Amino acid sequence: MQPSNTRKARQNRREQRRQRAVPQAPAYIKRQIPCYELLSEEGLVQIEQTAERILAEVGIDFRGDDEALRLWGEAGAEVEGERVRFAPGLVRQLLKTAPAEFTQHARNPDHSVRIGGNNVVMAPSYGSPFVMDLDEGRRYGTLEDFQNFVKLGYSTPWLHHSGGTVCEPVDAPVNKRHLDMVYSHMRYSDKAFLGSVTTPERAEDSIELCRILFGTDRLKQDCVIMGNVNVNSPLVWDGVATQVIRAYARANQASVIVPFILGGAMGPVTNAGAIAQALAETMVGCALTQLERPGAPVIFGNFLSSTSLRSGSPTFGTPEPALGSLVIGQLARRLNLPLRCSGSFTTSKLPDAQSGRESSMSMLAAVQCGANFILHSAGFLDSLLSMSYEKFVMDTDFCGAMHTYLRGIPVDTNSLALDAFHEVGPGQHFFGCAHTMANYETAYWESELSDNDAFENWEENGSEDIMIRANKRWKKLLAEYEAPPLDLATDEALLAFIDEKKAASEDAWY
Amino acid sequence: MQPSNTRKARQNRREQRRQRAVPQAPAYIKRQIPCYELLSEEGLVQIEQTAERILAEVGIDFRGDDEALRLWGEAGAEVEGERVRFAPGLVRQLLKTAPAEFTQHARNPDHSVRIGGNNVVMAPSYGSPFVMDLDEGRRYGTLEDFQNFVKLGYSTPWLHHSGGTVCEPVDAPVNKRHLDMVYSHMRYSDKAFLGSVTTPERAEDSIELCRILFGTDRLKQDCVIMGNVNVNSPLVWDGVATQVIRAYARANQASVIVPFILGGAMGPVTNAGAIAQALAETMVGCALTQLERPGAPVIFGNFLSSTSLRSGSPTFGTPEPALGSLVIGQLARRLNLPLRCSGSFTTSKLPDAQSGRESSMSMLAAVQCGANFILHSAGFLDSLLSMSYEKFVMDTDFCGAMHTYLRGIPVDTNSLALDAFHEVGPGQHFFGCAHTMANYETAYWESELSDNDAFENWEENGSEDIMIRANKRWKKLLAEYEAPPLDLATDEALLAFIDEKKAASEDAWY
Repeated sequence: MQPSNTRKARQNRREQRRQRAVPQAPAYIKRQIPCYELLSEEGLVQIEQTAERILAEVGIDFRGDDEALRLWGEAGAEVEGERVRFAPGLVRQLLKTAPAEFTQHARNPDHSVRIGGNNVVMAPSYGSPFVMDLDEGRRYGTLEDFQNFVKLGYSTPWLHHSGGTVCEPVDAPVNKRHLDMVYSHMRYSDKAFLGSVTTPERAEDSIELCRILFGTDRLKQDCVIMGNVNVNSPLVWDGVATQVIRAYARANQASVIVPFILGGAMGPVTNAGAIAQALAETMVGCALTQLERPGAPVIFGNFLSSTSLRSGSPTFGTPEPALGSLVIGQLARRLNLPLRCSGSFTTSKLPDAQSGRESSMSMLAAVQCGANFILHSAGFLDSLLSMSYEKFVMDTDFCGAMHTYLRGIPVDTNSLALDAFHEVGPGQHFFGCAHTMANYETAYWESELSDNDAFENWEENGSEDIMIRANKRWKKLLAEYEAPPLDLATDEALLAFIDEKKAASEDAWY
Repeated sequence: MQPSNTRKARQNRREQRRQRAVPQAPAYIKRQIPCYELLSEEGLVQIEQTAERILAEVGIDFRGDDEALRLWGEAGAEVEGERVRFAPGLVRQLLKTAPAEFTQHARNPDHSVRIGGNNVVMAPSYGSPFVMDLDEGRRYGTLEDFQNFVKLGYSTPWLHHSGGTVCEPVDAPVNKRHLDMVYSHMRYSDKAFLGSVTTPERAEDSIELCRILFGTDRLKQDCVIMGNVNVNSPLVWDGVATQVIRAYARANQASVIVPFILGGAMGPVTNAGAIAQALAETMVGCALTQLERPGAPVIFGNFLSSTSLRSGSPTFGTPEPALGSLVIGQLARRLNLPLRCSGSFTTSKLPDAQSGRESSMSMLAAVQCGANFILHSAGFLDSLLSMSYEKFVMDTDFCGAMHTYLRGIPVDTNSLALDAFHEVGPGQHFFGCAHTMANYETAYWESELSDNDAFENWEENGSEDIMIRANKRWKKLLAEYEAPPLDLATDEALLAFIDEKKAASEDAWY
């Protein structure tokens, strides 16, 4: 008998394939282990006091945003030209209106993510101009690459968020590519995503596209988009950044406030000082959202690393920023703000053992420090200059491991297994015992990429390293990808807005 | 002018070369960060109670060591054939005579290591029958390989201990190779080491060689050798193992008591139960040392991993044993015993990204759980079947990173760097400021193997991955190796003992 070929039957089969292609997993992780409390109360207080003194004695420059200066003056800060100084405690006080937790809604409600508290949300790497794969090496990213990474992010159960600039689509005009990027997240995924932050207008466009997708009124009550905005460290907030932050806050949408400190360059070479600086810069950015709109959602961000004192190059995945993340986690909890931390960082140019080492060090730090939103969770290579296809699937596999890690060790009658010891006894094995049979299906995390086989089998199967397995894996995922359904009228409205915007100005390439 | 060629001048130059070849580093690490306290008091108590119930209700088999059974009977345990059951609290009580900290003395006093408390000692991997390198692939280990790994361990400042069976020297007779192994540690390194545990006689030989090296009386007061002894999990202590443990204890030397539990095979598939089992097995082994000689030094060991439920193969470097280590650390501290934990574990057959991931996961767990003695810190590959030259130098590099990690974040006036913020100010860089100049030399950990260069430079230099850099590195270290001085008469006495022992029996090859 031929399979039924009615429209309904075809739809059903498509739906079944779709469900197979997207494994079931939670929309985000609920942390069940404590955070790693690295620093003593005394140390934390000293860092907090130093941050307050930096803010009071040195201050922060706000460049090119008169409204931000006006807001700070109104809030009681001391404004002198572009320099703003803050009496001790002022900024911390302003942060009290920021929510400790909020939901970023996805167009598929099953993929909405809760940010803050004990929740952990993982998102792909952000901002690389280049992409890499084993076949073609390193090259500039294109819109096709961008869409591929959105599709890969949608296909994995271990990323909860579609991210933002998953790579720079360098083949699209600089002044219009944000439209293509936001549309790609909307069209090729149904997970939550980040909007443009490169100019206030592009932020507004990103928000406007959300109004079309979610409905205008929805944004008044719900966060559906976020902007990830960098401090111009040290101690400078650029007007473009603050206008972008204020645009998102005005629309009741979230910003992620992120210093960019490489110790020895944009901050002191000693970790405690760099952390104090990060605290000062981030608190001020977060507070600005509250001046624009008290209660607006905001995330306390962290991007702290070091420089090689041999070469002057940035380093990633080294011990100092891993420790720094743990302390910044403690500081963010004392502010009662959601935390963003580093993900799978590395300076390596290949997804080799160096990249595995460095990425584990930074990702474990993010997970242990209590990060609620982990950007750069997948794909990061080459000091953030390249987004790697192979690294992407290796990293999402590690994100899978982190799901198990964050579950911790449940202790109850079943897990303590006393009956199993009575059943099995000394010198026997547990393979077939009742406790094993009842628990083995959910017992251990199983990597999709790691090889646990016997050496002889591994050799017989071609002696593949994990790079080659990862290469096959991302190709398989892309080949099997099927887009989530999107209402036709909505899609047309999004495209109409984009066409109109694109037609309204010349292409710009820088 | 020609360099002076007197004997004294040659000696001086040799000494200078020797000092260059062995970078200065501490003999061991003093931990300056807290341990990661994973489980709640309630969870820990439940695990402890389960361990006590396993010991009281199921018991442990002692097979083939009547003296051990006699000692247990005398101590108040219930002995029924080979099965020994322990009233709740009995074993814990017996452990009170074990020292919380002790020193293992090296023949070079600068390399003596303090084990327990806040101290961390790292040692190479142990027990692989195969060795691997990029040039020749996988092959059986030889005595030359063994000596090479001892030399590499001596050459790196990041390992504090020479280890034991750094690989099996398969070209030496099974019944005599322990003599060659112990001698190699004595001759080619001056760091502390482990002795044989494969039979009680070989343990006695190892101790006897120490009496020659250190002097007979020395052993009465000082620990100069340790044996690393496995439980025959689940719940069996083999007579060879217990006789070996008792031999070391009798000579006032230390044992490392290590269960070998792969969940689903030698223990339950649930982590809490496997940890309870590990606690029960290890406590009993440690207590036996105290029955033999109260006050004998002993280390509470941990070797807990899982099995792949797809293939039945062991897995290493997965999240479950990493969490398990954290809990076992908590339990060992509650017993006030020094802790041995897992090092750089992996199932990968190559030092690729998988191996980097898995090894970081397990090594960071060891460092965070409070391990005092980290065996398998370097070289581990292929589920412990292979000792890899490239992995060895990659791992020691990571051990270097762990030195920095364990220093934590010092918080003081200098590190908080407030003056630097006053000096530099918003928008400026910290490259040349006074604080940077005063601190940059000691600021950051610098890897010997990681590439932080710009992509273009990396490409121009041959696009090497870390495997290739590691291959060059170990060859360079071996080429530059110079043996530490050993008193000629002592050397002759050691060799005479070994010759006599070797002559006294036929070679055995199994």
